[in-house]
Amino acid sequence: MDEIGVGLIGTGFMGKAHALAYRSVRAVMGDVPGARLVALAETPLDKAQAMAAQFGFDRATDQWRDLLGDPAIQVISITTPNGMHREMALAALAAGKHVWCEKPMALTLEDARAMEAAARASGLKTQLGYNYVANPAFAHACRLVADGAIGRVVHIRGWVDEDYQADPNLPWTWRATIKDAGLGALGDIGCHLFSLLTGLAGPIESVLGEIDTIHKTRPLADGSGHAAVENEDVASALLRFESGVSGVMTSSRSAWGRKSRLGFEVHGTAGMLIFDQERMNELQLFQNAGPKATQGFTTILTSPDHPPYGAFCPAPGHQLGFNDLKVIELAGFLRAIRDNSRPVVDFTAGLELEKAIHAVAVSAREGRRVRLDQI
Amino acid sequence: MDEIGVGLIGTGFMGKAHALAYRSVRAVMGDVPGARLVALAETPLDKAQAMAAQFGFDRATDQWRDLLGDPAIQVISITTPNGMHREMALAALAAGKHVWCEKPMALTLEDARAMEAAARASGLKTQLGYNYVANPAFAHACRLVADGAIGRVVHIRGWVDEDYQADPNLPWTWRATIKDAGLGALGDIGCHLFSLLTGLAGPIESVLGEIDTIHKTRPLADGSGHAAVENEDVASALLRFESGVSGVMTSSRSAWGRKSRLGFEVHGTAGMLIFDQERMNELQLFQNAGPKATQGFTTILTSPDHPPYGAFCPAPGHQLGFNDLKVIELAGFLRAIRDNSRPVVDFTAGLELEKAIHAVAVSAREGRRVRLDQI
Amino acid sequence: MDEIGVGLIGTGFMGKAHALAYRSVRAVMGDVPGARLVALAETPLDKAQAMAAQFGFDRATDQWRDLLGDPAIQVISITTPNGMHREMALAALAAGKHVWCEKPMALTLEDARAMEAAARASGLKTQLGYNYVANPAFAHACRLVADGAIGRVVHIRGWVDEDYQADPNLPWTWRATIKDAGLGALGDIGCHLFSLLTGLAGPIESVLGEIDTIHKTRPLADGSGHAAVENEDVASALLRFESGVSGVMTSSRSAWGRKSRLGFEVHGTAGMLIFDQERMNELQLFQNAGPKATQGFTTILTSPDHPPYGAFCPAPGHQLGFNDLKVIELAGFLRAIRDNSRPVVDFTAGLELEKAIHAVAVSAREGRRVRLDQI
Amino acid sequence: MDEIGVGLIGTGFMGKAHALAYRSVRAVMGDVPGARLVALAETPLDKAQAMAAQFGFDRATDQWRDLLGDPAIQVISITTPNGMHREMALAALAAGKHVWCEKPMALTLEDARAMEAAARASGLKTQLGYNYVANPAFAHACRLVADGAIGRVVHIRGWVDEDYQADPNLPWTWRATIKDAGLGALGDIGCHLFSLLTGLAGPIESVLGEIDTIHKTRPLADGSGHAAVENEDVASALLRFESGVSGVMTSSRSAWGRKSRLGFEVHGTAGMLIFDQERMNELQLFQNAGPKATQGFTTILTSPDHPPYGAFCPAPGHQLGFNDLKVIELAGFLRAIRDNSRPVVDFTAGLELEKAIHAVAVSAREGRRVRLDQI
Repeated sequence: MDEIGVGLIGTGFMGKAHALAYRSVRAVMGDVPGARLVALAETPLDKAQAMAAQFGFDRATDQWRDLLGDPAIQVISITTPNGMHREMALAALAAGKHVWCEKPMALTLEDARAMEAAARASGLKTQLGYNYVANPAFAHACRLVADGAIGRVVHIRGWVDEDYQADPNLPWTWRATIKDAGLGALGDIGCHLFSLLTGLAGPIESVLGEIDTIHKTRPLADGSGHAAVENEDVASALLRFESGVSGVMTSSRSAWGRKSRLGFEVHGTAGMLIFDQERMNELQLFQNAGPKATQGFTTILTSPDHPPYGAFCPAPGHQLGFNDLKVIELAGFLRAIRDNSRPVVDFTAGLELEKAIHAVAVSAREGRRVRLDQI
Repeated sequence: MDEIGVGLIGTGFMGKAHALAYRSVRAVMGDVPGARLVALAETPLDKAQAMAAQFGFDRATDQWRDLLGDPAIQVISITTPNGMHREMALAALAAGKHVWCEKPMALTLEDARAMEAAARASGLKTQLGYNYVANPAFAHACRLVADGAIGRVVHIRGWVDEDYQADPNLPWTWRATIKDAGLGALGDIGCHLFSLLTGLAGPIESVLGEIDTIHKTRPLADGSGHAAVENEDVASALLRFESGVSGVMTSSRSAWGRKSRLGFEVHGTAGMLIFDQERMNELQLFQNAGPKATQGFTTILTSPDHPPYGAFCPAPGHQLGFNDLKVIELAGFLRAIRDNSRPVVDFTAGLELEKAIHAVAVSAREGRRVRLDQI
Repeated sequence: MDEIGVGLIGTGFMGKAHALAYRSVRAVMGDVPGARLVALAETPLDKAQAMAAQFGFDRATDQWRDLLGDPAIQVISITTPNGMHREMALAALAAGKHVWCEKPMALTLEDARAMEAAARASGLKTQLGYNYVANPAFAHACRLVADGAIGRVVHIRGWVDEDYQADPNLPWTWRATIKDAGLGALGDIGCHLFSLLTGLAGPIESVLGEIDTIHKTRPLADGSGHAAVENEDVASALLRFESGVSGVMTSSRSAWGRKSRLGFEVHGTAGMLIFDQERMNELQLFQNAGPKATQGFTTILTSPDHPPYGAFCPAPGHQLGFNDLKVIELAGFLRAIRDNSRPVVDFTAGLELEKAIHAVAVSAREGRRVRLDQI
Repeated sequence: MDEIGVGLIGTGFMGKAHALAYRSVRAVMGDVPGARLVALAETPLDKAQAMAAQFGFDRATDQWRDLLGDPAIQVISITTPNGMHREMALAALAAGKHVWCEKPMALTLEDARAMEAAARASGLKTQLGYNYVANPAFAHACRLVADGAIGRVVHIRGWVDEDYQADPNLPWTWRATIKDAGLGALGDIGCHLFSLLTGLAGPIESVLGEIDTIHKTRPLADGSGHAAVENEDVASALLRFESGVSGVMTSSRSAWGRKSRLGFEVHGTAGMLIFDQERMNELQLFQNAGPKATQGFTTILTSPDHPPYGAFCPAPGHQLGFNDLKVIELAGFLRAIRDNSRPVVDFTAGLELEKAIHAVAVSAREGRRVRLDQI
């Protein structure tokens, strides 16, 4: 398989990130199929045509279903609002296409389950847009944990904060509704945190959560008054992993000054590992080794010693960026398709992340510990 | 009142810190009574004598009750193991002495209540060793919050981690027992965190907690086997403040690499404040003000603009140290005695902090939310 | 001009960076011509063919002069060792091609002068690979300086350190010779520093420099002994700018732990600006404004408020990477070609940077201050 | 020797710091003589009396020569403006007193030489107020260098910046004159930097310097116009150590945002050490050891593993402050007196630091390299 045909639905933040990844992935990695940019779906049509020209797609359409019947397309990228993921993913799978879908999977756990079932039944490859697990620094953290660099993991903490809903004067949008947006901070960013935490410490058994809406109402854009914000600005939870390890997660979309503050502390019997996405090329490692007088946290700068950093740059410390993570994520997906292996976060793995964020919300609403296998 | 007579019980970590504070406080502050170092109690007697000579006390005794009847003594410092606080504090108050007692107050909530009742009945001044609230950086944080520098407080997170029990090979001691040590991480360091959080966000209404003992047993020093660790290495809780604000606290005494990691994030509607004791002369402030392109977290270095820093040093950024916090704490206590005002953390205020840490432990054991007014 | 034909010479570190930039630039920016990847030159031929397949070039050759006569090619990228730049650039210009050449320009000042003269005479566009000036954080720093955010500039310091020659056991290579490599740290990385410093503070009038070779010899790879290192590991200089501002530059290629430590401090009458490439998405700004008690260095995280960051990502703080800088650099070159305007660092501007690094070396050798207009 | 009698001249910034050190030193260290606070000299008399009461001195005088004849005094602290150091030090030595004098030694090199000669002839102990070399973090840095933790030292850089003269609107004072203040940034803070650099890399052979006065005039306080600033705001120099090692020093008293920015980078053949006084409890260490993938700079937090930190606090990472450095400095002086050994920075060692700062100024004025042995 030398080249794989791509159909892209959506051209916003993530649509562009997918397009850029498709354009770069083979040139970066060498060992993956090239991507042929067959068709792009967006509305209205003139926007679709403009973006196809910019991104380098062969054709444009304002009917996403047009992609389904095109035999030149083997993979469909879904980067539209979350409420459309289920319908599109099911249609794409039914049409025999592999699916790369942005996170979160869907608005509801029911939708996510339907998508997962369809994916499993299809025999096709699926992948969700959990780009942060693609970071070489994260891969290195996982290797260090697996190799015992910090001993046995005994506790883990994670956080994910942004400030895109911090300003009380931001107008009300559909994002504030459960019907159209589903969960708030948990769905937008909390699920990313769970992708890191479970990557480091394995599956979660149960959660004890709290959620809070900081700004209960927001002004309507037309000045006619205020409307209610239905989903959470802040979510926190005490976690119990299947391994017995305890943890804590915190998240806010109203945390002033935080732009992409996604990170973790892994506490081990022989050390500690710390990461923060706002300094995504760094990893902090403490090891109880050597003379006490020279112990401390070591700031590891990612380099060719942390694959696949070297595919982007042979010089250490020169920094990868956010869009590079999408390239690594895509490379994994293309290899899974080529090798008929399992992508890192396919719909089945993704469903577990959906369960985690919904479990926090249910726990908060019902005031009780919620097990992920009973949600 | 030009000079106040002091009796000190205990000469360990905190005993020395008290002695140093007594020696410096008037020279630093100018406006407080001097301290006359009357007598010091320690066992055995030769150690008491050596420490009295080193610290500059007039006399030494191995009988702490000897201090009670000495009319030259107006204040007694209690810096002995926590299990002795109740008896000593009650005796000192009964003898008409003001009491500066190290934290935590006592092993049990019952002991703490007895101490608080005695203090209230006595009309004497009491103060607990919550040195971190004495930091000019913390005082500044409180002023910024009160002045609305970050808008209305909407969420707060705190952490306190050290690694003094991180090593699995450390031998078992009495510190591992509930009978002799009481709580673990919560009592040793967790109570400090609550002193900061309630200073910033007011009283706590209820907690939902979890605790964990990482190292279930420890080797006996004599090599004869292992004994159980009864109290917690790790504690975490979801907090609800009386103001309605939500929060999260985390704490560990087994967190490798953390030496004095005590800090907080205060989330406001217009900004954020962050502090960490390991960089105790810094405060991080984000304000949603001015052009977006120059917004960010500002690292404020403490200086004479943050009283009482200037009493130690007229030059900014020259750094206070841990022992300086004890001097500030003592100055507040001496002023309260002189002015017959209320010390910042007297036994009544301290009892609320005891309730908080015990509430976390009770919540964890019983698996339910615990209100502080019902514990 | 909808599309521009590209010929690439060299496929190493920078060759790949150019190829990736050509593949992405239009998709990222939208407003620039697309790049048609016409031909790639590398040796031997099978490597050329493999890289052409990986990077997506239409054809491959092991004869770089083959690119000169191809009418489909309008731009030639030169990413070969520095000793080949002069011949290739002159040939490309003679063939009527625009030239994007990696830095430093050449081995000697004489070569650089010849290249500059040819470029000026040709009427074609040239650009040198000074990617760090393309950083949105640097563009923002320049805007802040121009807008008076730190008052009048009064002093500037810069540093550029890496550790690729820190290990005494690294074998001797041609890089150690003046004949084949020219300058050492000054040529490899020092010129980047001058591109930042002159961007911030204008042209340099004179320098007073020192150079040092830390590792005087290196082992021959065949084990037959040691050979001399002829060029400098470390260079430092006191700078005087034409504006009268004083400055200091330091550089080392043997600075253990430094991976891409390129940065500056700009001292102004009303503030200070600090940057470091190892945290390339951050800028530190101090302004003497507002209450003293809240002053400090603000860490600005780059965001869509710092163009052209937003072309890569609409979310703040999500991080650009090194390869993104090449995309911005290329976009500027393509716009200059399209608009017949002057690229930021063309051969004429680049010659001034060559003068600066050679002036430091001359000053060090001759023990006297060297003016750039007399070198 | 159980107790040593102290006379203190001056009660400003440093006078208070000396007083606090005398009050604490024995209580902290245990193994040093106690200090008896005999007499304090200040003008006018009522201020002297107030400060004696605050600092705990037995008596006060407005005639500093009164201290000379007091047989109860063995040590005299000189903390007055620099122009008075020579006269006072000579008188104190002539009266048979040991002298602890603040830095810089004097206004001119001639004065410093006279002081050094008198000290040498007297057989008494002298010490200069180079408090930063007393930092346990610095002592640890020196030990690491001596033990080869970073291999052989090959290059060193240092900086010392503050912003106390950054504001152009600050009024003119005597500090701006060479007659009354001597050197500017070099004398106030530059000499501290040389105390660190020579401690790490040994004696300096020669310097090549530049100085600059940023604010050429300052407004007179009475509004009657402006007067000239005669001494330097900024100084920079290329250094050559006797060992052959090269270095760079930079200094500014007009560096906005810098409060106590005194630090260094030591480049070695096997690692790097970095320190900054604004985070005076931290040391950064890079070692080329262990797997490349986990190398990086380690942030060492000072602790009881870095003597004499443990004399202040048995818990790691709890932070020393600026005034604690004075206690360590004094302890060294008292031990030197007791043991008849040489203090770390006595007048003889201090004269070398004076030579260094004056050599930079001479080099800058005369435009030539200046050897320290020929100044």
